[in-house]
Amino acid sequence: MNEYGETNKKNLPPEMDAEEFRRFGKQMVDYVADYLENIRDRKPFPDVSPGYLKELIPDKAPDEAEQWPDVMKDIERVIMPGVTHWHSPQFHAYFPTANSYPAIVADILSDAIGCIGFSWASSPACTELEMVVLDWLAKMLELPDCFLHSSEGHGGGVIQGTASEATLVALLSARTQRLHQILGDKFSHSPDEGIISKMVAYCSAQAHSSVERAALIGAVKVRLLETDEKFSLRGETLQRAIEKDREAGLIPFFLCATLGTTSVCSFDNVLELGTVCEKEGLWMHIDAAYAGSAFICPEFRPLLNGVEHAMSFNFNPHKWLQVNFDCSAMWVKDSRLLSDAFNVDPLYLKHDNQGAIPDFRHWHIPLGRRFRSLKLWFVLRLFGIKGLQERIRKDVKLAHQFEELVKADQRFEIFGEVVLGLVCFRIKGSNEVNERLLKTINDDRRIHLVPSKVNDTFFLRFAVCASRTESKDVKFAWEVIQELTKKISDEKK
Amino acid sequence: MNEYGETNKKNLPPEMDAEEFRRFGKQMVDYVADYLENIRDRKPFPDVSPGYLKELIPDKAPDEAEQWPDVMKDIERVIMPGVTHWHSPQFHAYFPTANSYPAIVADILSDAIGCIGFSWASSPACTELEMVVLDWLAKMLELPDCFLHSSEGHGGGVIQGTASEATLVALLSARTQRLHQILGDKFSHSPDEGIISKMVAYCSAQAHSSVERAALIGAVKVRLLETDEKFSLRGETLQRAIEKDREAGLIPFFLCATLGTTSVCSFDNVLELGTVCEKEGLWMHIDAAYAGSAFICPEFRPLLNGVEHAMSFNFNPHKWLQVNFDCSAMWVKDSRLLSDAFNVDPLYLKHDNQGAIPDFRHWHIPLGRRFRSLKLWFVLRLFGIKGLQERIRKDVKLAHQFEELVKADQRFEIFGEVVLGLVCFRIKGSNEVNERLLKTINDDRRIHLVPSKVNDTFFLRFAVCASRTESKDVKFAWEVIQELTKKISDEKK
Repeated sequence: MNEYGETNKKNLPPEMDAEEFRRFGKQMVDYVADYLENIRDRKPFPDVSPGYLKELIPDKAPDEAEQWPDVMKDIERVIMPGVTHWHSPQFHAYFPTANSYPAIVADILSDAIGCIGFSWASSPACTELEMVVLDWLAKMLELPDCFLHSSEGHGGGVIQGTASEATLVALLSARTQRLHQILGDKFSHSPDEGIISKMVAYCSAQAHSSVERAALIGAVKVRLLETDEKFSLRGETLQRAIEKDREAGLIPFFLCATLGTTSVCSFDNVLELGTVCEKEGLWMHIDAAYAGSAFICPEFRPLLNGVEHAMSFNFNPHKWLQVNFDCSAMWVKDSRLLSDAFNVDPLYLKHDNQGAIPDFRHWHIPLGRRFRSLKLWFVLRLFGIKGLQERIRKDVKLAHQFEELVKADQRFEIFGEVVLGLVCFRIKGSNEVNERLLKTINDDRRIHLVPSKVNDTFFLRFAVCASRTESKDVKFAWEVIQELTKKISDEKK
Repeated sequence: MNEYGETNKKNLPPEMDAEEFRRFGKQMVDYVADYLENIRDRKPFPDVSPGYLKELIPDKAPDEAEQWPDVMKDIERVIMPGVTHWHSPQFHAYFPTANSYPAIVADILSDAIGCIGFSWASSPACTELEMVVLDWLAKMLELPDCFLHSSEGHGGGVIQGTASEATLVALLSARTQRLHQILGDKFSHSPDEGIISKMVAYCSAQAHSSVERAALIGAVKVRLLETDEKFSLRGETLQRAIEKDREAGLIPFFLCATLGTTSVCSFDNVLELGTVCEKEGLWMHIDAAYAGSAFICPEFRPLLNGVEHAMSFNFNPHKWLQVNFDCSAMWVKDSRLLSDAFNVDPLYLKHDNQGAIPDFRHWHIPLGRRFRSLKLWFVLRLFGIKGLQERIRKDVKLAHQFEELVKADQRFEIFGEVVLGLVCFRIKGSNEVNERLLKTINDDRRIHLVPSKVNDTFFLRFAVCASRTESKDVKFAWEVIQELTKKISDEKK
C-alpha cells in the first residue's frame, strides 16, 4: 500500500520502508518541537537513582522487529525520566551546549548522506564545505590570514569532535615537531633515549582537565602553573617554569593557554605567553572552548589578542554558537605538522587528487568522520552573524543581571570576574556552608548548578546555558537560591 | 502568526521558530526519503575536481539571517554534485557504512535532547541506556559474561566514535597497566627511565593502519607481523616475535588481533594468539570493525571463538549493523584499567552517585559524548535480531554471487578467501594492468571500487556496501568490469 515499500519488501529484510520513515520522521520532528517549546514544564535535573532504566526495559534485544509507534511511546516512559534537560531555562550547570533547529535539520541530511569523509575522494563535498565554513568562521573571529585555507601557506581549520581532542592533537603535533628538531635524520615516534619523558607541557592551574589528560596520553610531563589574582596565567610565570625545567635537563615544548577557563571563565594572558613561547620555541595552543564564540562580537574580540602567536587555536561552536554537539573548530598555522604526527597511509585510502587538497584524516585522531560542516553551514546562514552575536550579548547581559542580584545580597560574594556568561558566587563563609547550599539546590531540583574549587575556595557556578533562558529565569533562579539559603540557615539555628 | 513564535520573537534573536522548524524538518525528512529511494539515479562517484565547491558559495558568512528554503535549494546545487554516494547500490568501495531510517530518526531525538553524557549525572538516561543496549549486543554476539555490565565483575561495553579510538584506548590502557606492573609504587604516566620506548605492540601486517597510528600516539614500538597463506596471524609467529624482542631487552605488552582485515577480510587466529598472550602477559585487543556484525549469525559466530582470551573487543555497528556513524561498540573485561589510563577528575564533574555506575568519560578519549545509544536501541528494536541477520546473510550471498562471476571468467582470479561481504579479485597478470583497470572503472563512474595491495600484489576490492544492493546490481557491476576490461585490453593492442 505504498509507493516504494512493495519492491523493497520482496528483496530486503522486513525493515522500515520509506513511507513509514516519512511518518515516523515527521512525528519525531513534532515531538522534538513540542519537547523544546515546552521544556519549561520539566525540572532540569531528573529524580532517578543509578540503575533506574534497566528495570524499565527487557534485558535482551527482540528477535522480531517491533513497531515504531511502540518505540515512540517508550521515549516518555523510559528515556525522559532520566534526562538532565540541558536546554531547560533552569539549567545553569557546566557550560552551555548548543541546540538549534537549523542544526537539527542539517544533521538529518548529514545522516542521510551518511558518507565517511576521511579523504577528499571519500566525499569531496564533505572536505570542501568544511574548508569553506571554517574560513567563514575564521573571518568572523578575525583570525590572522595564516589560519585560513584560502591563504597562501599551509594553515587551515578542521572540525574536531571535542576540545579535548583538539588539545591532544596539538600536543602530539608539538611532540612530533620537537622530536624532529632533536633527532633530525634519526627521527622516530618512539625514540630510545627516553626523550619523550623529558618533555614538559604547561598550562594554568585553572586549565581544563583535558590538558592533563593529553599529557598523560602523550607520556609527557605537565606543569599546572599558578595564576595571578585574576586567575590568569602570565608570561613571567611561564618563563620561570621553562628556565627551571631546562636547568633540570628537561625539554619544555608545549603550552596550552586557556581563554575562558571552565572553573571561573578567566583568561590567560596570551600576548605575554605568546611572546615567551616564540622566544623559547614552544608550541602555543589556545583552548577557548567556551569563550571563543563570544569573539564574533567586536566588543569581546580583544580577549583574543595575541592569537597571532599561537600555532593552533580551538573553540567549540557546539557550546555557544548554536551548532549541536559535536563541532569543535580548530585552526592551525601549519597543517603539515599535524599530518607529520598522524600520517600512516595505506593504499586503500589513496586517491588521484592526493596533495591537492587536505585529507582531513591526517588532522585528527579518528579515521572516520561525519559530514559535520553541514550543521555549521546551516547555522551560519539561518542565524546570520548578527543573529549569533545577539545570542551572545543576551547571555552576557543575563549573567550581569545575576551578578547584580548576588551583589545586592550582603550574604553573598562574587568569586572572580564576570566577563561572559558565567557567574561564580558563594555565601561569605566556609566551604562547608557553600557545599550544603549546592546540595540543597540540586536536591530541590527546580534549578541545576555545579560547583568548582580554586585555591581551596569552594564556590557555585551559575552559567547562562539554554537559548530559552530569559531575564525572568535568572530572577527565578536567584529567588530559589535565596529561599534555600534561608532554609539551610534556619536549619542551622 | 504562530503558536510559539510571538513570545520568542520579543526576547530572542530573529532565529527559526518552532513552526518554521516543523515545516523545515518535515521537508528534510521528505528530501531524505526521496534521496535514498532514488539513489540509483545518481552515479556513485562525483565528477568534480578539488576546489569545485568554493566557486559555488560566498567566501564569507552572511550578516543577516537567510531563509531556509534558500538553504534547501543549495543542497542540490552545492552539496550533491560533490557527494560520493556511499548508499548507492553501485558503491563497492571501502567497507559498508550503515544508514537506516530508524537510526536517522533516533538521531533527531538525540540532537534535540542535546545532553552531553560525560558523567552519569550529566544525563542518567544517556549512560544507562548505553549500558543496557551494549549488554543486548553482547548477548547477540554471545560474548562471555565477563564483558557484560550486568555481570558480577568490572566488565562492560561502551560506545566509542570509531574503531581507531577503540584501538587507541586499548593500547593506552595496556600501556598504563604495564607501567603499574613495572613501577609499582613509583608509577608515573611519564616515567623517566625510557620504559615506554621499550614497549612493543604487535599486529598482523594486514591490520588496519589505526594500530600503527595508536602505537605512534602512544610512543611505543609496533611490529607488523607476517601472516600465513590465508593472511591470518598465527600464534607461533607472535611467540617468536615476543621472544626476539625480549632478548633485545624490549617489553612486549599488547597485541591487536584483527577479525576481518580491511585489505582482504582475513581472520587472525585468536584462539592461538589468545593463548600466547595469556601465557606471556600481553593485553589482547580484538578489532572486528567490519566483521563483528556478522557474528550475530550463528553460522559466523565460530569466527569469534577465542574472544574469551581478549581483554577488549570492538566492532562497528556503524558499518554493517544499520546504525549510522558514529557507533563503535567496545567491550572490556576490566573497566578499571581504562579509568586508570584516563582518570583526571575535576570537581565540576563530580557528583553524588560517583562509583555506583560508570562515568563513561573515563572510558574514552573525548570528554563530551552524544546520546548515541538511542540509535542503537531504535535499530535493534525496529529491525529485530532476525532482520539484522537477514541483512548480513543477503550481503554474504551477494558477495558469493560476485565471486562465482569472477571465477567463471578465465581472465580473472580471486585473491584471498570470500568469507563475508568482500571479494578481492584481479586480472591474472601484472599489477600495472590491474591498476589500469581500477582507474578505468573509477573514471567511468558507473560503479566505484578501491584497491589494496598485499605482499606486493595489487588487487581490486568489491565490497557489498549499500542496503539497497541487490543481485541485479552485482550483475551490473560485473558487466561494467568485463566491458572495461575488454576496453583496456583493446587499447593495449
